[in-house]
Amino acid sequence: MYIPTRFGKILAVCTVTVALLSPVALSAQTQTEEAPALPPALTAILEKLRDAALSSDYAWRQAAHLTENIGPRLSGSPQAEAAVNYVADELRRLGLDVKLEKVMVPHWVRGEEKAELTAYPGQVPGTTQKIVLTALGNSAATPAEGLTAEVVVVNNFDELGVLGRERVSGRIVLFNEKFDKRMAAAGHGGAAYAEAVPYRSRGAGTAKPLGAVALLVRSVGGADYRLPHTGYSAPAGIPTAAVTAEDAELIAHLAQQGRVIMHLVLTPKTLPEVAGYNVIADLKGSEHPEQVVIVSGHLDSWDLGTGAIDDAAGVAVAMQTAQLLKKLGLTPRRTMRVIAWTDEENGVAGSRGYMADYKDAMPNHVGAIESDLGAGHPLGFVGIFNPSVEAVLRPVTRVLAPMGANLMENAGEAAADVNPMATAGVPVFGIMQDERTYFNYHHTAADTLDKIDPRELAENAAAMAVLAYAIADMQQALPRTPISQ
Amino acid sequence: MYIPTRFGKILAVCTVTVALLSPVALSAQTQTEEAPALPPALTAILEKLRDAALSSDYAWRQAAHLTENIGPRLSGSPQAEAAVNYVADELRRLGLDVKLEKVMVPHWVRGEEKAELTAYPGQVPGTTQKIVLTALGNSAATPAEGLTAEVVVVNNFDELGVLGRERVSGRIVLFNEKFDKRMAAAGHGGAAYAEAVPYRSRGAGTAKPLGAVALLVRSVGGADYRLPHTGYSAPAGIPTAAVTAEDAELIAHLAQQGRVIMHLVLTPKTLPEVAGYNVIADLKGSEHPEQVVIVSGHLDSWDLGTGAIDDAAGVAVAMQTAQLLKKLGLTPRRTMRVIAWTDEENGVAGSRGYMADYKDAMPNHVGAIESDLGAGHPLGFVGIFNPSVEAVLRPVTRVLAPMGANLMENAGEAAADVNPMATAGVPVFGIMQDERTYFNYHHTAADTLDKIDPRELAENAAAMAVLAYAIADMQQALPRTPISQ
Repeated sequence: MYIPTRFGKILAVCTVTVALLSPVALSAQTQTEEAPALPPALTAILEKLRDAALSSDYAWRQAAHLTENIGPRLSGSPQAEAAVNYVADELRRLGLDVKLEKVMVPHWVRGEEKAELTAYPGQVPGTTQKIVLTALGNSAATPAEGLTAEVVVVNNFDELGVLGRERVSGRIVLFNEKFDKRMAAAGHGGAAYAEAVPYRSRGAGTAKPLGAVALLVRSVGGADYRLPHTGYSAPAGIPTAAVTAEDAELIAHLAQQGRVIMHLVLTPKTLPEVAGYNVIADLKGSEHPEQVVIVSGHLDSWDLGTGAIDDAAGVAVAMQTAQLLKKLGLTPRRTMRVIAWTDEENGVAGSRGYMADYKDAMPNHVGAIESDLGAGHPLGFVGIFNPSVEAVLRPVTRVLAPMGANLMENAGEAAADVNPMATAGVPVFGIMQDERTYFNYHHTAADTLDKIDPRELAENAAAMAVLAYAIADMQQALPRTPISQ
Repeated sequence: MYIPTRFGKILAVCTVTVALLSPVALSAQTQTEEAPALPPALTAILEKLRDAALSSDYAWRQAAHLTENIGPRLSGSPQAEAAVNYVADELRRLGLDVKLEKVMVPHWVRGEEKAELTAYPGQVPGTTQKIVLTALGNSAATPAEGLTAEVVVVNNFDELGVLGRERVSGRIVLFNEKFDKRMAAAGHGGAAYAEAVPYRSRGAGTAKPLGAVALLVRSVGGADYRLPHTGYSAPAGIPTAAVTAEDAELIAHLAQQGRVIMHLVLTPKTLPEVAGYNVIADLKGSEHPEQVVIVSGHLDSWDLGTGAIDDAAGVAVAMQTAQLLKKLGLTPRRTMRVIAWTDEENGVAGSRGYMADYKDAMPNHVGAIESDLGAGHPLGFVGIFNPSVEAVLRPVTRVLAPMGANLMENAGEAAADVNPMATAGVPVFGIMQDERTYFNYHHTAADTLDKIDPRELAENAAAMAVLAYAIADMQQALPRTPISQ
């Protein structure tokens, strides 16, 4: 799932551009809203695609193979490479024109990870309290035998600043910022995530200059099953880990009573970068083969679980768009491009590589969709697009209304890999899944196949196929996203 | 929490005795139902106790100390011993007459535990699938370097029998019996538990004679967060562990596709038995000091979490009954006895010891209450008692009706430590907690203090204090439980 630090920037760009829309643009928007309905033949095709997706288990079988037979697919791992080959072979088998786009990706490997409190108020002599944690991506290692230091607990960056170097130096810092479970349960998991995730991604970099010997962050996620959530952290040269919500509470409670000493062992390794690959598979358009619509998910995953909802599901539904077109013998006017992105989780190298390699082709990218918010029931789409797009697509989302997937929200974000294309004017979309429980499992060992509901996955496949086909086959390309200077 | 294998027997006894109730007994019951209301003074005291409990954080502070400062308290551990001393000191401080009752308890110590699938269909060369599991209590160890064997998956004892020695010998057996999450979510967690738990407690003993080299059981509990549930297993001389629901699914899916080989490392140790202690603390009755009402919970816990809902909560609310009586200056006619049981989890040695040591005193035991179904909102009580008791206690449960704790169910079980007293005629009660989520956390690393809601814990303290005081202070002792021959 996306790294919100990048969102902020894109969102800001979009807010500005939308605010600056000239009266001419507004008038254009009004005209677009009166755009005629879709040609009946196209509507019929979209309905056929929707129904075919809903009655298929193709996406489910892809997700099952990626998670259960291949397994976790962290950048640099053998499984990541095997998944690339599996998806490429499968898309070739379907008859697509497949190529692998090489990019260099990080190769960080988890090691041993354990921690215990070795001194604290009320401790029973000869015993410790075990702490459940997991290293964050790009964490440095402790010495093999571990390190032992006092834990200082702060709730936010300001509190850390107040402590200052004197009270931080030589200690382990715990950021105890709470993931807002009520916000998530009310359907705003992404917002709750965005509030807490800076402590994960930037915590180590903030604590290290003050002399911290390690950085702990309360898990950024909603699990209350003593389950740590890993994720990207900017390399800072100190051991960096997420403790569970329960362990953060325990440490905070004990630290209120007196000194808390932790023994921490983390032995991950950062190895030299290796080659990773975006899988890019084209089904050539009949009329404008040079114009491209992207359907995508990211093929890499964190290593604790098997990367089912993050994001085998997204890759599987993107693959299914191609499978459905082939099965139904459909060829839209424009080229349909399936992309299985590499390294979304640990640096977004795949997306960056694509933006570099296809910079000149961006004017011919007429739309890009990515599914990367799980496999929950789709409610519609979020995206970054010209305000007139919503009206243009209304006849399309109407096809998805019977399954409840007809919302279209110009949200200032779509999904991490396609977001950057918005800056080149490409209308970008993410599927707006029901995200109420997504962040309970996100980046944990519990992101496993059983978290995907087959029916809901089929709904996602339907949503992606219908939107993508419509964009690829409409008479006129979608209005492009306003570009800021 | 209780070990249902024993329930069956008690339940059967009770069903028979109730069915055999003579017309005389039935007529006695009818008379009892017309029993007069409580004396207004007693009702006033019960209301005062209820309200004092609801406005107190005493139980919460006890649970916090037991879980966060002392920690997990498995039989034989230093923490179990420290907890005995803490509770004894605290009850002495309150002014009770405290003694420690010695019983020998098992001393089983968890070791390293890890597993991975080393060969399976679709495997990526050079990789494995990690399996999350935890040793069950009394498990034997694998060799230090582990063992490697094929996994055979069965859903129940019958399927294992069909496989027979030829297809089991030399293999690891996985019992994939599913804990019924819908039954639990509907409020019948105990029933769901009772259905699945025989595979945990008797699985190894069943598989070993067929030549199984290890026994795995799908976790008996409702967590879907890749969280294994430990628990008692009858010693069988082979390594015995619970895999998570997710891992059971993974293994079952792969085994449907072909051979699955697991490498399993479990290095627990079974050490010689050590002394454990029931804490027994009396507040002498004013009129019938020889007659005893027990309020209790069990002080030991499994070792993965910190034993908060199982069962620091039970001990804490039992302690609070004493604390409230002292605070309010109340002395009932009969003796109030607080017991913190030892070894409920791994053999019920504390309860067995008490039944042996106090056999002759059973006629003077007028009631026994234990809380061991978590700390959720109390709905009332379950128990094993003379059918006439419900009517006798109706004026008492009426005091608890405003907080919704007025049910009284002659359920054939109360709680593991007090159940056996029913066979000696003692009316026994358990608090009937809202158990919808109890088995999600039961026996897992996530049984931690945050799972106790302070308000709900106070309600439990109120329920226990009110029922116990009423039984201890009523003019006449409760009718005794029918005893089968």
